[in-house]
Amino acid sequence: MRRIRMGMVGGGPGAFIGNVHRMAARLDGQIELVAGCFSRDPAKSQAAGRELFLDPARVYPDYDAMFARETALPEDERIDFVSIVTPNAQHFPVAMAALEAGFHVVCDKPMTLNVAEAEALAAKVRETGLLFCLTHNYTAYPMIAQAKAMIAEGQLGKVRKVLAEYPQGWLAAPIDAAGNKQAAWRTDPAQAGGLGCYGDIGSHAENLAEYVTGLKIADLCADLHTFVPGRRLDDDGSVLVRFDNGARGVITASQIAVGEENALSLRVYGEKGGLEWRQEEPNTLVLKWNDRPRELYRTGWAGCSAAAANRTRIPAGHSEGFLEAFAVLYRNFALAIQARLDGTKFDRAMYDFPDAETGLRGMKFLAAVLASANRGAQWTRLED
Amino acid sequence: MRRIRMGMVGGGPGAFIGNVHRMAARLDGQIELVAGCFSRDPAKSQAAGRELFLDPARVYPDYDAMFARETALPEDERIDFVSIVTPNAQHFPVAMAALEAGFHVVCDKPMTLNVAEAEALAAKVRETGLLFCLTHNYTAYPMIAQAKAMIAEGQLGKVRKVLAEYPQGWLAAPIDAAGNKQAAWRTDPAQAGGLGCYGDIGSHAENLAEYVTGLKIADLCADLHTFVPGRRLDDDGSVLVRFDNGARGVITASQIAVGEENALSLRVYGEKGGLEWRQEEPNTLVLKWNDRPRELYRTGWAGCSAAAANRTRIPAGHSEGFLEAFAVLYRNFALAIQARLDGTKFDRAMYDFPDAETGLRGMKFLAAVLASANRGAQWTRLED
Amino acid sequence: MRRIRMGMVGGGPGAFIGNVHRMAARLDGQIELVAGCFSRDPAKSQAAGRELFLDPARVYPDYDAMFARETALPEDERIDFVSIVTPNAQHFPVAMAALEAGFHVVCDKPMTLNVAEAEALAAKVRETGLLFCLTHNYTAYPMIAQAKAMIAEGQLGKVRKVLAEYPQGWLAAPIDAAGNKQAAWRTDPAQAGGLGCYGDIGSHAENLAEYVTGLKIADLCADLHTFVPGRRLDDDGSVLVRFDNGARGVITASQIAVGEENALSLRVYGEKGGLEWRQEEPNTLVLKWNDRPRELYRTGWAGCSAAAANRTRIPAGHSEGFLEAFAVLYRNFALAIQARLDGTKFDRAMYDFPDAETGLRGMKFLAAVLASANRGAQWTRLED
Amino acid sequence: MRRIRMGMVGGGPGAFIGNVHRMAARLDGQIELVAGCFSRDPAKSQAAGRELFLDPARVYPDYDAMFARETALPEDERIDFVSIVTPNAQHFPVAMAALEAGFHVVCDKPMTLNVAEAEALAAKVRETGLLFCLTHNYTAYPMIAQAKAMIAEGQLGKVRKVLAEYPQGWLAAPIDAAGNKQAAWRTDPAQAGGLGCYGDIGSHAENLAEYVTGLKIADLCADLHTFVPGRRLDDDGSVLVRFDNGARGVITASQIAVGEENALSLRVYGEKGGLEWRQEEPNTLVLKWNDRPRELYRTGWAGCSAAAANRTRIPAGHSEGFLEAFAVLYRNFALAIQARLDGTKFDRAMYDFPDAETGLRGMKFLAAVLASANRGAQWTRLED
Repeated sequence: MRRIRMGMVGGGPGAFIGNVHRMAARLDGQIELVAGCFSRDPAKSQAAGRELFLDPARVYPDYDAMFARETALPEDERIDFVSIVTPNAQHFPVAMAALEAGFHVVCDKPMTLNVAEAEALAAKVRETGLLFCLTHNYTAYPMIAQAKAMIAEGQLGKVRKVLAEYPQGWLAAPIDAAGNKQAAWRTDPAQAGGLGCYGDIGSHAENLAEYVTGLKIADLCADLHTFVPGRRLDDDGSVLVRFDNGARGVITASQIAVGEENALSLRVYGEKGGLEWRQEEPNTLVLKWNDRPRELYRTGWAGCSAAAANRTRIPAGHSEGFLEAFAVLYRNFALAIQARLDGTKFDRAMYDFPDAETGLRGMKFLAAVLASANRGAQWTRLED
Repeated sequence: MRRIRMGMVGGGPGAFIGNVHRMAARLDGQIELVAGCFSRDPAKSQAAGRELFLDPARVYPDYDAMFARETALPEDERIDFVSIVTPNAQHFPVAMAALEAGFHVVCDKPMTLNVAEAEALAAKVRETGLLFCLTHNYTAYPMIAQAKAMIAEGQLGKVRKVLAEYPQGWLAAPIDAAGNKQAAWRTDPAQAGGLGCYGDIGSHAENLAEYVTGLKIADLCADLHTFVPGRRLDDDGSVLVRFDNGARGVITASQIAVGEENALSLRVYGEKGGLEWRQEEPNTLVLKWNDRPRELYRTGWAGCSAAAANRTRIPAGHSEGFLEAFAVLYRNFALAIQARLDGTKFDRAMYDFPDAETGLRGMKFLAAVLASANRGAQWTRLED
Repeated sequence: MRRIRMGMVGGGPGAFIGNVHRMAARLDGQIELVAGCFSRDPAKSQAAGRELFLDPARVYPDYDAMFARETALPEDERIDFVSIVTPNAQHFPVAMAALEAGFHVVCDKPMTLNVAEAEALAAKVRETGLLFCLTHNYTAYPMIAQAKAMIAEGQLGKVRKVLAEYPQGWLAAPIDAAGNKQAAWRTDPAQAGGLGCYGDIGSHAENLAEYVTGLKIADLCADLHTFVPGRRLDDDGSVLVRFDNGARGVITASQIAVGEENALSLRVYGEKGGLEWRQEEPNTLVLKWNDRPRELYRTGWAGCSAAAANRTRIPAGHSEGFLEAFAVLYRNFALAIQARLDGTKFDRAMYDFPDAETGLRGMKFLAAVLASANRGAQWTRLED
Repeated sequence: MRRIRMGMVGGGPGAFIGNVHRMAARLDGQIELVAGCFSRDPAKSQAAGRELFLDPARVYPDYDAMFARETALPEDERIDFVSIVTPNAQHFPVAMAALEAGFHVVCDKPMTLNVAEAEALAAKVRETGLLFCLTHNYTAYPMIAQAKAMIAEGQLGKVRKVLAEYPQGWLAAPIDAAGNKQAAWRTDPAQAGGLGCYGDIGSHAENLAEYVTGLKIADLCADLHTFVPGRRLDDDGSVLVRFDNGARGVITASQIAVGEENALSLRVYGEKGGLEWRQEEPNTLVLKWNDRPRELYRTGWAGCSAAAANRTRIPAGHSEGFLEAFAVLYRNFALAIQARLDGTKFDRAMYDFPDAETGLRGMKFLAAVLASANRGAQWTRLED
């Protein structure tokens, strides 16, 4: 047993998600950040490294240099994996290079800009046999594991209806045009890809729905819109979906829903029961029945499945938040690496994390959404 | 000033909605039930009359007899209006007959079985100049008046997104086939019309959305489904909608959402603010802002508009429920009749109730939903 | 079967609670208001009678006249019972007179101004054998019946801790001195009795706690205070209580809790389970367990006891509010009178209403609170 | 700038709170655990050290050895501070020894077993001038900073009423007698001190109330009880309190409130406004007003004070949980040490943490509670 060594690409000064990844990686004490390329500006990269107390020799001006130099380090020093927290457009090239250099990869979502890249990357992961984690962090909450387990066990019966939502309000005004950096890249097709709101957060709603139900969307009808004048990508939309088992549903997402924070939610109705989960109060899962009172499952409380308990660090009533869920992914990923180092068997189902196939699935969903929307919200087949 | 006299058609033994109308009519003390035809079975009608302490001479075997006999009574005895609480298929003929006999009419929703009937009825109302109230009761809650007023005043800015839902779970199993009377007629095309879930409750969601926003749905794409084997009408569906001002939205309704009671809700997002209302906790209206904390408007509390206050009977924190909202319609309708009796001006905006034009609008919405669904969920224009 | 005839004392122009009683009495259609003495000013009394569409001959200038005249009417015309909705100080003399005249009585709370009056009144009720209902309306909610039934059945185990609260904020400023009529009489010892906040609402919290648990408070320590300068009665206080079975608890009430509406709540913890109920959302009862998830019992939903169902008029999810609960008392009282008229057995447990013994108990509680507070919040025995 | 080096005492295998402290210390990346004495059993201490990837040379068999050896290390290696996470009885001797050895100290609460120890420790802190942090973690939530700031600015007006609660249910059954380790030491007078429930969690409620309001409790009346047969310390109690400004309130705590997790809450009512905070949903602060709608302040959203923002790491709607709040204390403590190392001024008000004076205050509160309870719940003066 030793600490797993992480190198980071991206996440320099002013970046938001880089620090989230670092906090998540730290929380459980199994991972050590030892190298990084935090900015394409070498001085900025070094400045970031200093703030993170890194050895300046392991703060690199670009990722190629990092992978080359780290590969050359003795095995007991070099990084075990790369964490990619760049803007979307860089995910693919950095991930490919990291895998080719022999490093496991954690990558922020969306995995790539399009399906072709996603297929290439998934193929590379298969080919190399390296570990790959896509940080669809919302699926890492304990109560999501509980929901998934209860559906898998058939407690809700065959699933009939699924409602997934992700409303935000922060892009209701043209703050992208006014210089907000986070807003600017997300609404720029070159950096974000062909979808704005759906690429950024609609994909979380889709991922959550498929993860929890175990179903696949088979057909969809996507009505996207850009409400803020001058914006180049969608900032709102609603998608009718039909699942492969015959279930129906809606995935609605928005970045112009004024006053909403990150109100991701999921409701699933089966033949026997329903469930509801809201990301802003993530430690409660509501179970709904026709023949008895509703039940409130709670993180850490009686009734939780092994999978939920496994993602729980502290007693019930002490809320585990966004960072704790994010950290579950890093912890599970570190355990998977450790198992490889030790040559032991890894319980992938219990220590779950989204992989490159999940990322590819997400890109296919987005491609279908874009195709549907571009044809005036016509029904479109989503191949598996 | 005197009590307004009501005659009822329908609402005999075992009926649910008839008693709701009677409780609503009683609450404020302005209306007196004096006559009725409660069942097509004369004995049952008389039995119902006895339970309601009516004069047996004014309990009739059929509505034609009632209208004929009541018309013949002295002006200071005869009924002022007819309340129609029959199954849907009877709404049209009874309402037409009542209007032709010169009586004002309160009618349960949906107003008719189809657009043609609705047009004929609306024309008859215009022609006779009589008062007509369609009991879309959910719009009568104080906090709905508050929401409507705030949007009309522009406090939310131009409306962009509207999410209206009405999930129920009581038809998740085939209880209609098993003999549940309420379920049986609602799923019988002959009695309920061409739509099941949407005719019954989807229409409430549509009505609520248009009432509160003041917008009209211009186009829609309806994906309806029947989940319970053997059932002949839809029991679930989701509808993408585009409003006449460019706003987008979703109307989703279900009767197979296991564990849901009557979870009608409305969310509206404008350029400046958002709002959320949930029928199961009807005395709270959440206002959402990007530049300041959320606000909870409450029935009877500071900040309420005159229209909301006007629908409030008791101090804040003492919840006004379903029957109180329903009773607002009866009270307003009675005030409108009183104003006619007195020859005084009636403040229709303040003492609001849904009329035949609203009913016609609802039937057009349902016709468009049905047309869209029948063509495999294709986009369909909804004419004003 | 016939309508039960009610005469009212008090509740004239500007009164709040009189109209609440009238709405409650009307809701279920069994009771007819036929006589009244609404004000000590004969013109005002007649004006109120006209608004209520009463026969002017049965609108009286004082209650003595009313009781004398009504007694003289034929049995099939005269009132069956008197509803007393005067300020507190009048409850006792009016109730005594009504009972002596042979009328059943509904009386608003508190029953009297002091224990001596309460004992005399309770004795009179026993002596006459007439029916007496004290409108502790909060105990009439369906979910309170559910809570009481579950505790009585032992589902929570032996009760250990009880927390009852009634915070309001409307008297935080000196509105009594500024002319608010509702505030003025409630803070006037001559009209309200020796306690302000506790007489008005603390008594509701105590009544609720004893009703639901079936326990009696045996000892208490009351720390009352008057925060608003110049006010003559308590406007806030907290009371430590010890119950006869060894349970402990707190009853806290306030009228200076700014921003609170009518936030009456009850929490009970037994050896096996706990429960929580909040009056502002009265249709939900939370059951809490150590060995399984929380359950939300809901008015009208699966799992409700016969007693709860008996107080429920409409399907779950259609909220039954304050007036519906209040109306349960009137309905049950009317059924009790009807049973006497019919000579049939009355199921008092199922069709429950608070009686004069409850009122006497409440006065003893208030007397003990006052005694404790007057001695600087010393422990005081509360005799049964 | 460098990482601050931490040595830990306690927190070995099976301990709960030690791991909480370690996660909190890690989260923001400023602190490095480099040494420890995790158990009095040297083998267990070494095992814990291995799991934490520590240099075995810096894993000690006892704290005296640790302090002696670390003191002897070069300045750029030795620990900067000691984190004490032992059972309560050890807090005092370890903290005294650490301070005497010249180390700053973070100590879990309660600070000591009694007032005499607390006075000695506070005096030692003053004498040495070293930094001392008592981990009253609940006061570190962003919304608690918001509440404190709004009261300090006078937005609520003079405080009148304070209700603080901490109900838990985990000790409702005799699990201490059945071998639960966490339960056993907390109910053992030798390890926990003279109070059970109040020492463990009642002290959190008191601390929260005084911290947020800025008031001091001046008098109290404590009714404690032990419900579980055979238990030696209180497992439930309620305390009436009077504050130094004349405000009144209640502090109630329980470990037998079946079904409660960690339902710490605080309600404060001033002359102009009220507020409510619940630890189980820590990112919402409800502000209550008589003249306008309620407001929901949210972590990270518009309207938050600088102090609240300073404790916020991620955007609104991504909940910051228990560990994030705990980590605020470690982050602030590390910043305070850093400022000493750098010789820069430290903004103590902004980067707040509870100190030894807070700990002394807490012990005085507990002593007064115990004195009151032992005299049958008599009023007792709490000296400042």
